[in-house]
Amino acid sequence: MNRAGREVRVRRYPAGAVTPDDFEIVEVPVADPHPGQVLVRNTWTSVDPGLRLRLRPDAPAGYFPAFPLGQAMDGIMAVGEVVESRAEGFVPGDVVSHAQGWRDYAVVDPGATQLGGIGTLSRLDIGDAEPQWYLGALGGMGLTAYAGLHVIDALDGGETVWVSAAAGAVGSLAAQIAKLRGNRVIASAGTDEKVDWLREALGVEAFNYRRGDLSSSLRELAPGGIDAYFDSVGGDHLEAALDHLTGHGRVAMCGSISDYESEPRGPRNLFLAVSRNLMLRGFRASSNLHLMAEMREQLSAWLGSGELVHRETVFADLEQAPHALAEMISGRTTGKTLVSIC
Amino acid sequence: MNRAGREVRVRRYPAGAVTPDDFEIVEVPVADPHPGQVLVRNTWTSVDPGLRLRLRPDAPAGYFPAFPLGQAMDGIMAVGEVVESRAEGFVPGDVVSHAQGWRDYAVVDPGATQLGGIGTLSRLDIGDAEPQWYLGALGGMGLTAYAGLHVIDALDGGETVWVSAAAGAVGSLAAQIAKLRGNRVIASAGTDEKVDWLREALGVEAFNYRRGDLSSSLRELAPGGIDAYFDSVGGDHLEAALDHLTGHGRVAMCGSISDYESEPRGPRNLFLAVSRNLMLRGFRASSNLHLMAEMREQLSAWLGSGELVHRETVFADLEQAPHALAEMISGRTTGKTLVSIC
Repeated sequence: MNRAGREVRVRRYPAGAVTPDDFEIVEVPVADPHPGQVLVRNTWTSVDPGLRLRLRPDAPAGYFPAFPLGQAMDGIMAVGEVVESRAEGFVPGDVVSHAQGWRDYAVVDPGATQLGGIGTLSRLDIGDAEPQWYLGALGGMGLTAYAGLHVIDALDGGETVWVSAAAGAVGSLAAQIAKLRGNRVIASAGTDEKVDWLREALGVEAFNYRRGDLSSSLRELAPGGIDAYFDSVGGDHLEAALDHLTGHGRVAMCGSISDYESEPRGPRNLFLAVSRNLMLRGFRASSNLHLMAEMREQLSAWLGSGELVHRETVFADLEQAPHALAEMISGRTTGKTLVSIC
Repeated sequence: MNRAGREVRVRRYPAGAVTPDDFEIVEVPVADPHPGQVLVRNTWTSVDPGLRLRLRPDAPAGYFPAFPLGQAMDGIMAVGEVVESRAEGFVPGDVVSHAQGWRDYAVVDPGATQLGGIGTLSRLDIGDAEPQWYLGALGGMGLTAYAGLHVIDALDGGETVWVSAAAGAVGSLAAQIAKLRGNRVIASAGTDEKVDWLREALGVEAFNYRRGDLSSSLRELAPGGIDAYFDSVGGDHLEAALDHLTGHGRVAMCGSISDYESEPRGPRNLFLAVSRNLMLRGFRASSNLHLMAEMREQLSAWLGSGELVHRETVFADLEQAPHALAEMISGRTTGKTLVSIC
């Protein structure tokens, strides 16, 4: 069948802040699926901070590769509906997730491992959930939050946990999971509106890191120090965490968004890790796929009971995807940033 | 009894490199022990990189406090012989370790916790060992090496482990323990002579980090990357380790001597911890006292069999202590740096 669809391409790597001009939306013919392949009409696609790392020629070693210029951007999560299937196990109408987002239609090979496994084509057993939750709480975001708390042993409760970027997709889940598991949670974000939301909707203590310095804010809310820190920010946030962690404190590092558009600098007070027996642990959600089932079971239950709040900032239509990314990186979105595809 | 003895005092905090002029040797009357106290004649005292951190007004948070100016320097390991005892459990002639080194005589209170427990007065069951080994392989140095490998799970063998400052007191033990436990060890040091010693006496692969750049040297010796890194250096060494660690690699951090006389800077490539699931773990020997018995048992056996080499650089007489420290920090000593006290 002769179908046409749009895809987003990178025109140039942004020099500093991302702008929509760095991208172009191109109409392309949609290939027919070969035997063994599935054609998916995307309905939602994900907008993640990590994409920024792939918008430069020197994507960090060990991370996903840079997006090539002038081509469809492979390796971005999407959910959609199977339109045509030539692969066993998939039929038209199936709701699926995969890693060929930022386009209207995707021809997907079920056998190909995508995004370390998180993005490999899979049929979603939606139940009472909304499909796009599988790009957020029930997908990579939920797994990142859950796995981060898991790898630093912060799921047993009874501790003081600081979560930065706590109004973001991962942070808002990490803050809630940490709280629902019995920890005292200190959350930080960059606008008063976000802080209000954290306090009122999530019920955690929160501060605006742009008002006053981080250390004073932490000292005020946690005069006895923090036991664990969930880091998506790096930079000054990580330094402040090291300053305030108590003995044997732990840091879960899932990203360092403060560095993504500038030269990274490491924490100058890393010696505190020695003097206070601290552990810093970087992790990837895709390296913790074994936790996906238990995460989904736990978070589905909390979503069902209303204990877990899943907030979304939705941009309508694919052509908004570049704008959505720019807005998210500059801190103007709350919760999971998504693009709905008409 | 009226005894006189010498003690070393800090005259001023060194601006850059330590020099003997920053200290003075003062003759003082030796106090008689009160009931419950023990008088010790020190025979050996320790010279440790960490002392440098206490020779500045702003000793790092969580670390041992700065040495006050113009007073005896409390909290430096020594071994000696009990001369007079007014405390239960100690009699004249006992060989003991404690934390009042850098002086001829020490009046020690057995009940006082010193250096987080490592320096608390204890009678040594010397056996075939030399007393000064309790300042090295069988003391805090051995515990630091052993505990560091323990906290990053590098005692089970079968991995490639990089040990920096490997001709130093801790590094030379960490390199040997890692090797004797079945790992492949890459050792680095700052002179050709040290590198020769590492290769010939310790039987490990080694390179001089001052010849060529760290990354090239590591790539050459460990083209497949390293699994674990034992860090006493920080700075460019830690950055090189992050570059070369394989997925789920670990770093044991016991110090960062490259920072002690300058402004510390953190590793600029710390994002690799995220992209490669790395763990960085700071630790203190004094937080791992529960490992002391097994460490001593293991290392004593290896010392007895000759499998473990315990090299010392000895400076004769207390008045050499400041010079010994300056020599050690500038990299001109090998193995454990000690001062014998006449």
